[in-house]
Amino acid sequence: MRKCGVLILSGGIDSTTLCYKFVNEDWVIRPLIFNYGQKHRKEIEYAKRTCLRLSLDYKIIDLSGMKELLSGSALTDLSIDIPEVSETTKKFDTLETTIVPNRNSIFLSIAIGYAVSQDFDNVLFGAHHSDRGVYPDCRSEFIESFQASERLATDNSSLRVIAPFVEMTKGKIVSIGSEMSVPFEETWSCYAGRDIHCGKCSSCIERKKAFSEAGVEDPTIYRS
Amino acid sequence: MRKCGVLILSGGIDSTTLCYKFVNEDWVIRPLIFNYGQKHRKEIEYAKRTCLRLSLDYKIIDLSGMKELLSGSALTDLSIDIPEVSETTKKFDTLETTIVPNRNSIFLSIAIGYAVSQDFDNVLFGAHHSDRGVYPDCRSEFIESFQASERLATDNSSLRVIAPFVEMTKGKIVSIGSEMSVPFEETWSCYAGRDIHCGKCSSCIERKKAFSEAGVEDPTIYRS
Repeated sequence: MRKCGVLILSGGIDSTTLCYKFVNEDWVIRPLIFNYGQKHRKEIEYAKRTCLRLSLDYKIIDLSGMKELLSGSALTDLSIDIPEVSETTKKFDTLETTIVPNRNSIFLSIAIGYAVSQDFDNVLFGAHHSDRGVYPDCRSEFIESFQASERLATDNSSLRVIAPFVEMTKGKIVSIGSEMSVPFEETWSCYAGRDIHCGKCSSCIERKKAFSEAGVEDPTIYRS
Repeated sequence: MRKCGVLILSGGIDSTTLCYKFVNEDWVIRPLIFNYGQKHRKEIEYAKRTCLRLSLDYKIIDLSGMKELLSGSALTDLSIDIPEVSETTKKFDTLETTIVPNRNSIFLSIAIGYAVSQDFDNVLFGAHHSDRGVYPDCRSEFIESFQASERLATDNSSLRVIAPFVEMTKGKIVSIGSEMSVPFEETWSCYAGRDIHCGKCSSCIERKKAFSEAGVEDPTIYRS
């Protein structure tokens, strides 16, 4: 029997590569795409295109009404600018404005609810090691603990939250994606969400760095 | 400084009593009310009235778009009847149709996100012991484990999920509420959600039993 999983798909490099990985391994994948009022909601279009390319039956969850509730993040709050960072320094204080309160727990809880209703035992999540400094809900210790909680919540000891990239850098993910010919030009990272990637936000900086580390040509057009 | 918490308010006996308890203890309470497409969404009106009576600044979260995603529950799915149970037998198999997949994890994750954005350390949750048989996400072991996960997710070791009724029967909650003069006629339990309480669904049966156990007069008008 084919393995089955709900996959949280943002339209960025990590979750798109995750999608290709599990499709290549012949899993049945149901992607969940979240609209949480992010400024870069154009990533949703990229996520949809990945699903169409891979013929995956996706669902979009509209949480945009919660934008105000989960306030105080530069990713959703128009009054807070997306921070620009230099390529050499890590400014954790600044980057903390890009945290959306408890975002990944909310996404994972919903994905697990969907998995239960589909009789699936697996949720697939693209968290990776390069994000662990700023985002606590991308860390392996959170994911392991959350899986344990959700097994209790659903009374299902077979339930798994699978995050195969959690100990990998984003550079390593680009290497893996490149081997599978993931069309990276069809992924979106920039938090500013304008016509082209800004090249200055932390997400653009991480994207550039990942291609450079992987020795893979970066197809992205950056404003700077 | 006054203690602060986000409280998950359904409009039923348990969460309404919880609300009165923390208001009486002089907490700052921000109730969150969820519309998840439940047939008995008239409970929302009862929850709102409690907030108005206690002058609480509440928010309603509309998750009704997720109804299909979290399918297969008699509480939300029009094609599945609300099970009627006898007052003497417990039919766990039947009552399992009233589980909404991962509902309490989803509610708690959102409540924690809201707490973080308000700089609150506490989420208040009315789960109780009478529900632990059927609903795994009402059990103390889940709540403790979930609190641990969410401390990791939010990098806040002060975060608490407070569920003071988790080891109490619903009868005990009615006793506590009665001492605080909670207007129980202004609470709603019936899963069928019609004009008056049906008296036959598991939630009505539990309601009747709770008043009887507490020796408190039941002000509810039941159809049968």
